[in-house]
Amino acid sequence: MRAVTIRDERLIVEQHPDPVPGAGEVLVRVRAAGLNGADMHQRRGRYPAPPGAPQDIPGLELAGEVAQRGPGAERFSDGDRVMAIVAGGAQAELALVHERVLMAVPDNLTWVEAGAVPEVFTTAQDAIFTQAGLRLAEHLLVHGGAGGVGTAAVQLGRAAGARVTATVRDPELRDRVAELGANAIAPAGFVEHGPFDVILELVGAPNLADNMNALNIGGRVAVIGVGGGATGELDLRMLMAKRGRIHGSTLRPRPLEEKALTARAMERAVLPLLADGSVRVPIAATYPLDQVEEAYERFQAGHKLGNIVLEIDP
Amino acid sequence: MRAVTIRDERLIVEQHPDPVPGAGEVLVRVRAAGLNGADMHQRRGRYPAPPGAPQDIPGLELAGEVAQRGPGAERFSDGDRVMAIVAGGAQAELALVHERVLMAVPDNLTWVEAGAVPEVFTTAQDAIFTQAGLRLAEHLLVHGGAGGVGTAAVQLGRAAGARVTATVRDPELRDRVAELGANAIAPAGFVEHGPFDVILELVGAPNLADNMNALNIGGRVAVIGVGGGATGELDLRMLMAKRGRIHGSTLRPRPLEEKALTARAMERAVLPLLADGSVRVPIAATYPLDQVEEAYERFQAGHKLGNIVLEIDP
Repeated sequence: MRAVTIRDERLIVEQHPDPVPGAGEVLVRVRAAGLNGADMHQRRGRYPAPPGAPQDIPGLELAGEVAQRGPGAERFSDGDRVMAIVAGGAQAELALVHERVLMAVPDNLTWVEAGAVPEVFTTAQDAIFTQAGLRLAEHLLVHGGAGGVGTAAVQLGRAAGARVTATVRDPELRDRVAELGANAIAPAGFVEHGPFDVILELVGAPNLADNMNALNIGGRVAVIGVGGGATGELDLRMLMAKRGRIHGSTLRPRPLEEKALTARAMERAVLPLLADGSVRVPIAATYPLDQVEEAYERFQAGHKLGNIVLEIDP
Repeated sequence: MRAVTIRDERLIVEQHPDPVPGAGEVLVRVRAAGLNGADMHQRRGRYPAPPGAPQDIPGLELAGEVAQRGPGAERFSDGDRVMAIVAGGAQAELALVHERVLMAVPDNLTWVEAGAVPEVFTTAQDAIFTQAGLRLAEHLLVHGGAGGVGTAAVQLGRAAGARVTATVRDPELRDRVAELGANAIAPAGFVEHGPFDVILELVGAPNLADNMNALNIGGRVAVIGVGGGATGELDLRMLMAKRGRIHGSTLRPRPLEEKALTARAMERAVLPLLADGSVRVPIAATYPLDQVEEAYERFQAGHKLGNIVLEIDP
């Protein structure tokens, strides 16, 4: 199979041996694979794949067809449209996924849309609901509302009956984030739009102090990205006064059981919303496998609404 | 009635008008009232009582007899032995408490013991179980294991089947904390005794970085005191890698409904353990009302196991 391969921080497409599915595993013929912030870090050697995952093939999410099933893999049939988060190796013609982590692709989604669903929607669903417990009529703040996770979080928050405010750096994208259901604002001065019951933090330490100021009594901050910096000052007295919580989380290093649980939560709460069209998958741009370098450059350039996706011809 | 009164940071005993119970309230003839760290701050003007609570009479917990019941107060009868957390006013001959916040005093507890139960055990129960969700066989770290909250937390953690480690500054008290069921260690180097699933933090910012280092995957830090400093550096990347949570909380400003819920949790989980003697209330010293200054001095001097309690003659 051909696969994106990291060689000294460059991305090339190389031949690799076809993977063989083990017990409970499914070999997926990948049709689309979304790009994520973590891919940018992994390319620079700062976010190595966990043990057991392909070490030099990036890619954390994929959609495609069931090509082959290992012993005992019975949830899907050959040719079924499936999608999943993986710990690595998604940006390839073939990828191995344990069947418990796979989800069926709703009929109305294109391959490109499906390839951008697993990582961003699972991350948003897990952070906002499973961890932070967002409830009806609460006020959700999404930092970075125009990105992949951001657009997913805005829509899921609205679907759950929350009021949603989203910070969007690029003024030209604010109207489009507003169309997804958020009050789209500039990052500076977000505190004045609070208080917020749940804050989805993708930027990191630079927002830490203001997040505390903007938090409602009983509020929760879910930290899922630190691209803007990892270490900042925390005022514990204010955290006590707010009776607040700060959660940190990543999906990638979780054991199979926990990843499978996130897939079940997606099937329950998110796939029906994608299937009936009430939640959409904004696609900023698509690239063929051979233009993977351009795809990563486009991802890092920002000024985009939603996801960048690699399309892989069968 | 006579009551401890704060006058320019001095504590004097003064006459006040007897309070009159309103709807749902109970007038309690106070027999014992434990001292807490918050009293020390309030005395210095740094922790004013919330609106509705007596402003100049300190005291956050009490035990005594039902002296009079306001309209609709039917949970207890005159003369019943009761105890409660209050938002202020406990260090007095009489105090008003809403009946939903009152708990029955187990028969085997002395007045002094009962007067030291509500604040410290409710704080420990709420932080360790309601917030941090301590489970069977997890490893609990209690910072400040010799104090009132610390001795409560050590015993409750053990009762729940957790392994408990407690930091104890005073070497002479470590054996006594060990008798309560903890591995009692010096505060310096506590990280080496981890990882910990739940950390009860009473000291504050000075421990923040090491708490992160010592936290297990999926671990929770419950911050209920910042006597050692409020503001410290937090590494959000490590919080993400640990998939950890930091909770802050205080009991005092919570609304009546939430305080009543903590009393119900105490009745369910803690009072049976006090009643059968499997959990004890260590008393370091008692003082009569007129020696309140000495009592506060003793509290601040440290080097004590458990609680300092004011005894009030009927």
